Amino acid sequence: MPRAHYELYYWPKIPGRGEFVRLALEEAGVSYLDVARQEGGMESLLALLKGRGGGLAPFAPPFLKSGKLLLAQTANILLYLASRHERLLPPGEANRFAAHQLQLTIADLVFEVHETHHPTAAHLYYEDQKPEAKRRAGAFVEARLPKYLGYFEEVLRCGDDGYLLGRRFSYVDLSMFQLMVGLSYAFPRAMKRLGPRIRGLSGHAARIRARRRIASYLASTRRLPFSEDGLFRHYPELDR
Amino acid sequence: MPRAHYELYYWPKIPGRGEFVRLALEEAGVSYLDVARQEGGMESLLALLKGRGGGLAPFAPPFLKSGKLLLAQTANILLYLASRHERLLPPGEANRFAAHQLQLTIADLVFEVHETHHPTAAHLYYEDQKPEAKRRAGAFVEARLPKYLGYFEEVLRCGDDGYLLGRRFSYVDLSMFQLMVGLSYAFPRAMKRLGPRIRGLSGHAARIRARRRIASYLASTRRLPFSEDGLFRHYPELDR
Repeated sequence: MPRAHYELYYWPKIPGRGEFVRLALEEAGVSYLDVARQEGGMESLLALLKGRGGGLAPFAPPFLKSGKLLLAQTANILLYLASRHERLLPPGEANRFAAHQLQLTIADLVFEVHETHHPTAAHLYYEDQKPEAKRRAGAFVEARLPKYLGYFEEVLRCGDDGYLLGRRFSYVDLSMFQLMVGLSYAFPRAMKRLGPRIRGLSGHAARIRARRRIASYLASTRRLPFSEDGLFRHYPELDR
Repeated sequence: MPRAHYELYYWPKIPGRGEFVRLALEEAGVSYLDVARQEGGMESLLALLKGRGGGLAPFAPPFLKSGKLLLAQTANILLYLASRHERLLPPGEANRFAAHQLQLTIADLVFEVHETHHPTAAHLYYEDQKPEAKRRAGAFVEARLPKYLGYFEEVLRCGDDGYLLGRRFSYVDLSMFQLMVGLSYAFPRAMKRLGPRIRGLSGHAARIRARRRIASYLASTRRLPFSEDGLFRHYPELDR
């Protein structure tokens, strides 16, 4: 087996934020090692997290090793990959900053998704913050989710229902797909109700899913299923 | 008066996330118009927010206009400014991605600060989510704040107590300063208790405050005071 181009470090049992990076690596068609899913890989992840890799330590996974560079923060990793693999981003400064702007807006929504099941403290169990979660998820489903998805739907419409940047595919389309799939897992009722208002995004997600490398990845064991240990969790009581 | 190089759009009465951009503009020594603080500026801000600027609309302020480019997301704007003003970032790919990684980690902490007073819904008043805020702020002060600041303190230590990237100043030092000042406004008791564990960060903030252009800016009317309408709010009941 040839040496992996990249080493991805992320929690081994959930798709989580690591999945946004995985999708980009798969679309780029590069070889990578999903370190923490290998034997002894969690020890390597924890060592780097404790700053034993030299240089700037990450605050949290995911992080990516590329040669001597160790990079953290999902959107930062994607920015880096896009600077190296032209398949992930059309050329030009305007595209680069537009894609990153959208990626950071997706990250904001992802943060809010996490807060629906952890509105009080990230280090406590969901079971210890259920009343707060119910209230937060209610406000999320009622106000924040339609606001964010309405925005992305509008962005897509400006791009003639093609890709988020317009006619040309970019890595942010992969993240948008993952976001839609995750939201549909976590909030099936809310997403169904929103359906007529986000037809563009639904069609977009279906097109991304059908891309050759993505379809092949999704059918592989490298793709991890969603669960109630992850970022996108399905708790029926939070999905009114 | 010469035409402004940049137009900054942010809510006119709070420092908020716009302040991270303002500090970078001030340090770069470029001319900029703080649009929403001018007569009729709020209308311009709202028009761009509604997508009337053409191109990719922002999801939320701050946003920056630079020639034909309209950019949103604080960290994205800083990345852009750093690509144009070498005073804001030492050269090299490793520095560029390291600074951005730290900026995004600061953004994560800033998000969590916001959630201490708005743990249920961003569109409701603090007064409508006080019990939840008290619980969230307790967990924040006890666990998250020491974890984040401990991380940044460690990053600074690796840089010989100079700057976050090491020997060389970058825009992320300005954001760290603003974060420390904001946290000290919002959580004076918690920050005092943390004092002995974040001596490096306190010294760093003092050094940044004394930089010529920053000191001059802080003494001007362009600098807005913190208040309980902003991001960093001082509610004694949230600062145990």
